[in-house]
Amino acid sequence: MKVSIIGLGLIGGSMAIALKELSIAKTILGVEANEKHALIALEKGLVDEVVSLEEAILKSEFIIIAIPVDEIEKLLPFILDKITKQVVIEVGSIKSGIIEVIKDHPNRKRFVATHPMWGTEYSGPEAAISGAFKGKAVVICDIDKADKDAVEMVKDLYRKLGMQPLYMNADEHDIHVAYVSHISHITSFALANTVLEKEREEDAIFSLASGGFESTVRLAKSNAAMWVPIFMQNRENVLDVLNEHISQLRKFKSCLEKENYNYLQELIEKANRIKNIIK
Amino acid sequence: MKVSIIGLGLIGGSMAIALKELSIAKTILGVEANEKHALIALEKGLVDEVVSLEEAILKSEFIIIAIPVDEIEKLLPFILDKITKQVVIEVGSIKSGIIEVIKDHPNRKRFVATHPMWGTEYSGPEAAISGAFKGKAVVICDIDKADKDAVEMVKDLYRKLGMQPLYMNADEHDIHVAYVSHISHITSFALANTVLEKEREEDAIFSLASGGFESTVRLAKSNAAMWVPIFMQNRENVLDVLNEHISQLRKFKSCLEKENYNYLQELIEKANRIKNIIK
Repeated sequence: MKVSIIGLGLIGGSMAIALKELSIAKTILGVEANEKHALIALEKGLVDEVVSLEEAILKSEFIIIAIPVDEIEKLLPFILDKITKQVVIEVGSIKSGIIEVIKDHPNRKRFVATHPMWGTEYSGPEAAISGAFKGKAVVICDIDKADKDAVEMVKDLYRKLGMQPLYMNADEHDIHVAYVSHISHITSFALANTVLEKEREEDAIFSLASGGFESTVRLAKSNAAMWVPIFMQNRENVLDVLNEHISQLRKFKSCLEKENYNYLQELIEKANRIKNIIK
Repeated sequence: MKVSIIGLGLIGGSMAIALKELSIAKTILGVEANEKHALIALEKGLVDEVVSLEEAILKSEFIIIAIPVDEIEKLLPFILDKITKQVVIEVGSIKSGIIEVIKDHPNRKRFVATHPMWGTEYSGPEAAISGAFKGKAVVICDIDKADKDAVEMVKDLYRKLGMQPLYMNADEHDIHVAYVSHISHITSFALANTVLEKEREEDAIFSLASGGFESTVRLAKSNAAMWVPIFMQNRENVLDVLNEHISQLRKFKSCLEKENYNYLQELIEKANRIKNIIK
């Protein structure tokens, strides 16, 4: 299969590695606006060639869009304009907005929105790694809106990548990711800012920070260019979860202020139930 | 050296493993109030014998207290009453309260407060592991209040464990840990409660939760019996940091409410500076 990957960053790059290693793609064409990234992708052998968007669309059967979600919204209608029977997927973190802009497009049925649930706090082609997706979940959205052969091709791709497919509509997806991904990023950014604001002795942080701090603050290294558009597009769901989170933190605050340690214990024991969900 | 470890949980148990593996202790006596834990510790070979507190004090040169901080406060004066020239350390997460209760004790100078900066979200002797402390920091508090030979013995112990010592007074220690450890636990507990409160579809969490969520919520599995006393004893510092953290989260909330995405980008880029501190 001849595949084009648009955007050779963490996800696009890791996808390229997997497609090659698992012999899913014979040829991979890359499209990359950032020249430095294009060069790194070629040097790392992620893609066979870096070409123009037009050439990529023309010369491939399967097109993977792996760019920030605001750019997907801009680029996707243009790509659908140009295709004939190619299948197009995107791998962004938020779906409703993207699906809305192409809902009446004549080539809508050649497009499938997907979200492989993998990522790290790093970005760019240098962050791309082997074995990224295996064993993880992938959300495939609104499959009733796409052609059967397109859906089959997408299912087959993710099966070969070793991913567990979950089917839901775009709105359901966007609510769930607000909980299991977006809020974690906000708490992590806010935690980093809390510490940077108040703890002036940076050496102390560096030396004392043990595994606990590192794991809660890890996501704060994530790229603004990727995350601002996600928060924009999932604004209402994220606000809803963020309000709940602030109110949960206020319960801890109130326990400490009132020295109500029985309730504090209850809150912690309730939180411990996450053990049953996250192993 | 003959060592007693009081409390054979995650920290005491991991300490026992290290003392044996590195041939620091020839004999380890354990003291454990929980009979099931005592049995597991013997079965795992963490200690040579489980004995009474009195016997442990009498028969060892070096005593390590590894129990929740509220119990340290109760037990430490009693232990100092019984010792002659043994050295006593504790390895709790908070110092001011503990140091206060024994400040006028006639055997004060045989005691050194220490905090090895290692832990996991698990507890009990079954969670004890090999190689826990190597390469991590250890805070050694108020060394001017202890006998020189006691301090040397403690320094030597942690050097052999491969830890980097940091010297500070109890108050400084308690402020720093509020930032680099205690607040991370509160955000993690609150995040777990946010998700458990609002996201009723637990299957969705389980399937979708990727590495990001798992790492920010991991600490929410931590034991209430250990953490309530820590928050009690570090109440003022934790409240101070928690207030700052809530106000940082409100900035994110306000950006989303007002759709001020330039400021949102600024907040994220500021948070990214944590890269310079945590590698």
